[in-house]
Amino acid sequence: MTVGVCYFPEHWPRERWETDAAQMAEAGIEYVRMAEFSWAVLEPEPGSYDFEWLDDAVEILADHGLKVVLCTPTATPPKWLVDRHPEILQADPDGTPRRFGSRRHYCFNSPVYRQETRRIVSKLAEHYADVDAVVGWQTDNEFGCHHTVRCYCEDCAAAFSEWLRATYDDIDDLNEKWGTTFWSQRYRSFEAVDPPRPTPAEHHPSHLLDYHRFASDSVVDYNRLHADILRDHDDWFVAHNFMGDFETLDTHAVADDLDLVTWDSYPTGFVQDRRTGTPSMDELRAGDPDQVGMNHDLYRGTNDAPFWVMEQQPGDVNWPPHCPQPGEGAMRLWAHHATGHGADAVLYFRWRRCREGQEQYHAGLRKQDGSADRGYRDATDVAADLSDVDSDHVDAPVALLHDYDDWWAVSAQPHAPEFDYWEHARTYYRALRARGVQVDVVHPETDLSDYAAVVAPSLHLADDERASHLREFVASGGELLLGARSGAKDPYNKLPDELAPGAFADLAGVRVDQHESFPADVDLSVAVDGGRAADGNGDAYAVSVWSEWLDPAPETETLATHTTDLADGTPAVTRNVTGDGSTVYCGVWPGADLADELVSGLLSRAGVETTHRLPDGVRVNERDGLTWVSNFTSDPVSVDAPADATFVVGDETLDGFDAAVVESAPADLELGTDD
Amino acid sequence: MTVGVCYFPEHWPRERWETDAAQMAEAGIEYVRMAEFSWAVLEPEPGSYDFEWLDDAVEILADHGLKVVLCTPTATPPKWLVDRHPEILQADPDGTPRRFGSRRHYCFNSPVYRQETRRIVSKLAEHYADVDAVVGWQTDNEFGCHHTVRCYCEDCAAAFSEWLRATYDDIDDLNEKWGTTFWSQRYRSFEAVDPPRPTPAEHHPSHLLDYHRFASDSVVDYNRLHADILRDHDDWFVAHNFMGDFETLDTHAVADDLDLVTWDSYPTGFVQDRRTGTPSMDELRAGDPDQVGMNHDLYRGTNDAPFWVMEQQPGDVNWPPHCPQPGEGAMRLWAHHATGHGADAVLYFRWRRCREGQEQYHAGLRKQDGSADRGYRDATDVAADLSDVDSDHVDAPVALLHDYDDWWAVSAQPHAPEFDYWEHARTYYRALRARGVQVDVVHPETDLSDYAAVVAPSLHLADDERASHLREFVASGGELLLGARSGAKDPYNKLPDELAPGAFADLAGVRVDQHESFPADVDLSVAVDGGRAADGNGDAYAVSVWSEWLDPAPETETLATHTTDLADGTPAVTRNVTGDGSTVYCGVWPGADLADELVSGLLSRAGVETTHRLPDGVRVNERDGLTWVSNFTSDPVSVDAPADATFVVGDETLDGFDAAVVESAPADLELGTDD
Amino acid sequence: MTVGVCYFPEHWPRERWETDAAQMAEAGIEYVRMAEFSWAVLEPEPGSYDFEWLDDAVEILADHGLKVVLCTPTATPPKWLVDRHPEILQADPDGTPRRFGSRRHYCFNSPVYRQETRRIVSKLAEHYADVDAVVGWQTDNEFGCHHTVRCYCEDCAAAFSEWLRATYDDIDDLNEKWGTTFWSQRYRSFEAVDPPRPTPAEHHPSHLLDYHRFASDSVVDYNRLHADILRDHDDWFVAHNFMGDFETLDTHAVADDLDLVTWDSYPTGFVQDRRTGTPSMDELRAGDPDQVGMNHDLYRGTNDAPFWVMEQQPGDVNWPPHCPQPGEGAMRLWAHHATGHGADAVLYFRWRRCREGQEQYHAGLRKQDGSADRGYRDATDVAADLSDVDSDHVDAPVALLHDYDDWWAVSAQPHAPEFDYWEHARTYYRALRARGVQVDVVHPETDLSDYAAVVAPSLHLADDERASHLREFVASGGELLLGARSGAKDPYNKLPDELAPGAFADLAGVRVDQHESFPADVDLSVAVDGGRAADGNGDAYAVSVWSEWLDPAPETETLATHTTDLADGTPAVTRNVTGDGSTVYCGVWPGADLADELVSGLLSRAGVETTHRLPDGVRVNERDGLTWVSNFTSDPVSVDAPADATFVVGDETLDGFDAAVVESAPADLELGTDD
Repeated sequence: MTVGVCYFPEHWPRERWETDAAQMAEAGIEYVRMAEFSWAVLEPEPGSYDFEWLDDAVEILADHGLKVVLCTPTATPPKWLVDRHPEILQADPDGTPRRFGSRRHYCFNSPVYRQETRRIVSKLAEHYADVDAVVGWQTDNEFGCHHTVRCYCEDCAAAFSEWLRATYDDIDDLNEKWGTTFWSQRYRSFEAVDPPRPTPAEHHPSHLLDYHRFASDSVVDYNRLHADILRDHDDWFVAHNFMGDFETLDTHAVADDLDLVTWDSYPTGFVQDRRTGTPSMDELRAGDPDQVGMNHDLYRGTNDAPFWVMEQQPGDVNWPPHCPQPGEGAMRLWAHHATGHGADAVLYFRWRRCREGQEQYHAGLRKQDGSADRGYRDATDVAADLSDVDSDHVDAPVALLHDYDDWWAVSAQPHAPEFDYWEHARTYYRALRARGVQVDVVHPETDLSDYAAVVAPSLHLADDERASHLREFVASGGELLLGARSGAKDPYNKLPDELAPGAFADLAGVRVDQHESFPADVDLSVAVDGGRAADGNGDAYAVSVWSEWLDPAPETETLATHTTDLADGTPAVTRNVTGDGSTVYCGVWPGADLADELVSGLLSRAGVETTHRLPDGVRVNERDGLTWVSNFTSDPVSVDAPADATFVVGDETLDGFDAAVVESAPADLELGTDD
Repeated sequence: MTVGVCYFPEHWPRERWETDAAQMAEAGIEYVRMAEFSWAVLEPEPGSYDFEWLDDAVEILADHGLKVVLCTPTATPPKWLVDRHPEILQADPDGTPRRFGSRRHYCFNSPVYRQETRRIVSKLAEHYADVDAVVGWQTDNEFGCHHTVRCYCEDCAAAFSEWLRATYDDIDDLNEKWGTTFWSQRYRSFEAVDPPRPTPAEHHPSHLLDYHRFASDSVVDYNRLHADILRDHDDWFVAHNFMGDFETLDTHAVADDLDLVTWDSYPTGFVQDRRTGTPSMDELRAGDPDQVGMNHDLYRGTNDAPFWVMEQQPGDVNWPPHCPQPGEGAMRLWAHHATGHGADAVLYFRWRRCREGQEQYHAGLRKQDGSADRGYRDATDVAADLSDVDSDHVDAPVALLHDYDDWWAVSAQPHAPEFDYWEHARTYYRALRARGVQVDVVHPETDLSDYAAVVAPSLHLADDERASHLREFVASGGELLLGARSGAKDPYNKLPDELAPGAFADLAGVRVDQHESFPADVDLSVAVDGGRAADGNGDAYAVSVWSEWLDPAPETETLATHTTDLADGTPAVTRNVTGDGSTVYCGVWPGADLADELVSGLLSRAGVETTHRLPDGVRVNERDGLTWVSNFTSDPVSVDAPADATFVVGDETLDGFDAAVVESAPADLELGTDD
Repeated sequence: MTVGVCYFPEHWPRERWETDAAQMAEAGIEYVRMAEFSWAVLEPEPGSYDFEWLDDAVEILADHGLKVVLCTPTATPPKWLVDRHPEILQADPDGTPRRFGSRRHYCFNSPVYRQETRRIVSKLAEHYADVDAVVGWQTDNEFGCHHTVRCYCEDCAAAFSEWLRATYDDIDDLNEKWGTTFWSQRYRSFEAVDPPRPTPAEHHPSHLLDYHRFASDSVVDYNRLHADILRDHDDWFVAHNFMGDFETLDTHAVADDLDLVTWDSYPTGFVQDRRTGTPSMDELRAGDPDQVGMNHDLYRGTNDAPFWVMEQQPGDVNWPPHCPQPGEGAMRLWAHHATGHGADAVLYFRWRRCREGQEQYHAGLRKQDGSADRGYRDATDVAADLSDVDSDHVDAPVALLHDYDDWWAVSAQPHAPEFDYWEHARTYYRALRARGVQVDVVHPETDLSDYAAVVAPSLHLADDERASHLREFVASGGELLLGARSGAKDPYNKLPDELAPGAFADLAGVRVDQHESFPADVDLSVAVDGGRAADGNGDAYAVSVWSEWLDPAPETETLATHTTDLADGTPAVTRNVTGDGSTVYCGVWPGADLADELVSGLLSRAGVETTHRLPDGVRVNERDGLTWVSNFTSDPVSVDAPADATFVVGDETLDGFDAAVVESAPADLELGTDD
């Protein structure tokens, strides 16, 4: 329960560092991250190292009681390295190199760059192994940012062939698993399989999926290279800072080599550039708590352990389309919200607005002239708030299953421009969170025995093993909700012999007779239980974009039927009891009301206690006996808590963009808003 | 009057083929198309052929009384061929190769690929020359799909220079015909003329037009190479499957080397991706009958002979933006509609949903698990319907003139983003069809003596020869409607000396004083006969996008005048009598009501009988004494036929997406709808 | 006060030239520009020149009393030159060459092309040095058109390194000035700095700014090469024809080597393709007088001398999205409007619609058949009008400061897609012009002592020298309005140590506490003087896109405060008195009403007389005692002038698209419209 900051002493005169350290300490900051992007300063000439400035910085911070997290500086190879080895550059699909002049211009599969990485990481690890103040490391920075997970250079072409050789028995096995008879796409050797470069028509989906797996695995390998060297030198922690709503990198796989999972949270940017729908003014001011929260729960779930926010938005930022000022107190709110979701530390990025280079329009806790900015005041407040709070594990009753392979497969063949895998999953996540429930976003192979309910928005690629895992969960009393497009494909991105939901068909007691997709502005609807529910769409529940016509087995109950046009009267949502539990199959992309209806039923059957339905922008989180109330709106919220409940932070009245922490369960609170 | 199916036995276990054949026969299917895209299976190793599987498939089908159409497999050269000869790949204008990994990745002008094509086609022709069940061939597949008519590789650069050498007397002749003094674009040799690769500003329009002619001619040559070899071996028919609303390939020229013209019809896809305007729900379910019908009439007109639909949409498909399920019965409706337009066979694509590769989201008549899909039931129904129907030639009283050169010239200089040559032509086509009239879409050089009326929406490139042809038609009593931008250019895409309509000016008795273009949402209007007609736009007829100010000769009648703004009072539509006929010149892009007004007058003067004005989505077709009524809407349609008229298919009441065939002329029917 | 025409005799038979010259003389034309784009005709074979045709054309024109302006033909190197030296081609950032086939396909830094330029320009200058009729030269044509100022070829890469070497003391100086510690972007030599080619993330803003300076300087050098050769041969004038609203080339710097600044004015094109907002029908017919006028005032201001319109739109043109016919009389109106703004000659482009090449859809004064087009009649009218008018210098009381470096810096980091530097400046320009005030658009280093008021919409890059210049202006009684984002950066595109407005902070008496940006459709507002002004936005003045929260010094007056949301109550506009003048700082992008309010206050304090607020589309210009009234609307305008005021052109009633010239000051006129 603490805060920190990202610091670039190399951008400022050495005589300022003492002041900076003192101001950090005064604010209550505990952790300081440094040396990200610093290769050209650490090794200004090839083979000639200068660590002295960093030594001094570490020492000054340590003198003020601050703990240091260092970064391997590999996200920015210096120009001299690129000039010596231009083959380390990434390439676009058409072969255009991604050149020096920004960051992340290296290929994960470059043998030369891996060698250079070993060299600089070893030097640093060796140098700081005995420095007590250095408590951990961040590997590189935001692997894959700027669309760099996927590279198409010659080194990747060779590595991909090797990856395929390691994955398949032989080339006939690949031809069989992918299905290459279609369009004469058979290969006679692994060497013959190229990266998916420009072609007249779309690529083979199995080829694409494997290339995306390979590209993600390349990052996993590259991260492991860092982690192994660092662990060889000390027992500091090894972390990486992942990104929000990020598709191309399998966080679960990278995290296997990490001690600590962290991510970089920029709420007012994300709500503009990676979410469907025009942001409201409140969202421009503070973001969407479910969008941010789903990332918290993903990264917490990755290692089933507390996580950090390694970079927390400190004020206005440079990269979204528009850059409004965050709401009054928003920087404090975000830290509370993260902590409620299980963060043990929240580090603001950055200490001080930088005068040079690409991020001059990115605020820091201090302004460029050194004076305190809005974020500094918020950070100081939340550091004080959290100093009173000691909280352990988040205990979530519900798991939301997510597999990056499914994301990649759906993205390669969305079958409607609007079908975004993650946005679809967020629909269910949002409904759960609107009922005050904690959610673990976890890989489908996770042990599910401790969960009362499981929501699987789209378990797209399926085989018997995955089906067995869910079958056991339901058999022993678990309540499962399986969403649209589940089981539609086999693990190689082919259609299975049987109709969707394929391997899950017996469990769900249903077959998908037909699927169809529509523009988002076409109104579709379903009726629940044969009746017609009140809803913005008239007398039925609104659904959109995706519609399946279900063919339930005789014993399977129909929960909702289509009420639109051609599909009128056809089952849309079903429920099948197996063992001590049951499986709901939802063949549509539900609107918010239908999602609430389905999720409420699921939670009720699973015996999970919920709040009343919370309005958008107001959320609660339970962590180890404490409940965080987060108000992402500009309107006040009142909290009616049990008489004996103590407010650890705040009180019964939250201002706009305010937070409170109370010793009570969410379901025991009554939240009042103007809505 | 029959149906067929496209079949890929190589995608399924050999033990299934017998079942497939039996089910085809049971459905009433007569033709089976095979071996498209099968090169890698027919020649798995370079020089090592395996035709056995195909022999077996042909035999099994023949045993069930089915006739086979084979395809030359050249649309998909195998990877081993590409690896041996990477120079066969096409290139984008900027030189980026279009690589292996989908289809159509070869250049039509590659000498190596032409040699390889001769080899594989000869082998196949030789092998199947004695097999009775093989009744015909399809050359390659959808020439030019995925923007592949136009390639910019080095082989094309060399071939283009040779094409120019064959087209022009010498380089001075080219300089003169193109007009290369402008911007110092003179050439000193044919070798110096490059393909139109990236340039700072737009390309020379004469250069573009000739490159587009050359590219189309390259396909014509390449197709002839197939046809000649096939004809050397047997007297089976040679066909090709063209595409819908397809700009870049001159169908007329390719067809000269074909016995049978076919095309691939996907109504719910086309209405989304190659038509202006947001599709209605009915159109998402069944498409736009005029969009589909115009293609039918184009391909029927190409060889003045019955055509086939070689691929008919079988259900939902994978490639449009959205993929709704077709309306109930739509797959049957489309086959009827095609037959009414003159199709002798309609083959559904494909037999069974494919489990692998790029088209997994494309339905078949059977589902991936082998069970019957919606299309199978519709196909079975229509096969039964058509077994009772025997109908010969379509006899159209009206010709709509279309020349690909005009399309290419207008596309190179649309002068308004909204000016789409084909959409503009469709405005007139739609008006004719709404009056129940059969239309031949034919090349302007077609013998016109049998037509009562001719509509030429935009005969853009003109010379005296073309003008004479029309002059003779009108002189002998023909009624002509000449649309905007006609005669604006000479055949080399230069302005002629005289003002538009250039070579047609005497015939039309009019000169274009000015032309102008506007955004589609700017309301323009004209008044007919000096009066003001009731219309959605108030008291005048709506027109849009394109407006010419006409200067009629003294004897020329003004049919409509502009009523908008600066052009107010200026003639917009004129009529000039020459010989026994007359010529209407329409200098605007008419709205539907004005198009109806103009077309009705034309038909009336030409003595063509019409129906009352049919609502959108309901169309009639007369073929050899029978009238097809096609209902592309979800609402019922009643057919009031003469008492003695027999319904060969259906009866007086059509459901949504239903069809009927009645022994009566269209003009004798009264169709009732809710509209 | 005269008109001219651009003429391409080489496009027409020699026997026509005599007629052309006679018709020009008859129209009252004085100047004829020729030989643009004629290299391939002047040197049809390498080293073999043919100037005879041009000699003849000059002679024929001279015989009719016409004066000739010739052009260096370098905008279109012939194909034979490109084939011999393909390295002269420009390259896109990704290396794709910009090839032959249009125009402007050469690199300004190509040593080979500079040599070829010297050769052809010397030949021409030598040849025409003794020809009296040739009074001046245009260098090349529209430098930078089609995005060609910025090239990324190898010649540019080398030249950029040399440019940097000449600009900075040494590479350490560059590293310090740019700030390359950020993201390890340090360089060890000038050679190591590449052009900004494709990178994973955005480029370093200092790198971008210097590349854009270098690219502009390359054109300056290339133009000087022409000018020096031409001046070596005769004392004819040397001019260049610049473009409208053109960002990438520093006109001020090019103009230092010119005797005469000219530009090419296409009002109905510009209003469509380089202005925010959908054009009204009147604007489609005649353009936006403030958009056109701001260019007039820029190019007049460049050399503080009369300018020419070297190309004036003659009718409909080919390149905008849509091509309506100009309003009746618009071609005359534009010439009057230009003359009122200080033009001494207006040359229509082109004499006759060209039958060949890329501009066939571009009208001329004569149609392609040689007959008079609408523009010929208007040109004849205005030539007659202006023959009575003799007017000297425009004397503007207000300067609007503009620096291309600021434009480039803001474009590289707009911080909101809607923040267009030029559009923002136009907001202030428009407000000044709506009050009938003449404006000089000048470089910030211009001597300001003769101006009563100065508006600096966004002096983004600032240092002490620039601040001193303004400080002196205000100290001696000048009234200054400093707009948003002023002083935010130092001249190297880094943040200065202090907060914005940086070097201007003392003068403005204010600090920018925060800045923020919003989508254009988010309603923002401010209240003036603590009150609430009537406005379309309710009770406050509308502002948009950009908002700064100001922190005024104690003695600084707050003129307006934010009334929106989070910023409510915070100062938005301030005023600070220093010496005998004062400085208004406006921290928002004002709507038209706020801009009028601020500008009116400024003019009032500065003692500048104004008109009542003129409606959009109606403007007045004072030039040497005469006032031009220009009506860019289709509605009539009445002019109530003092009794003794003589109308030199027109009278008290202007029709739509009409102009009048009256001997009276603007402030003494009362203009009546329907508004």
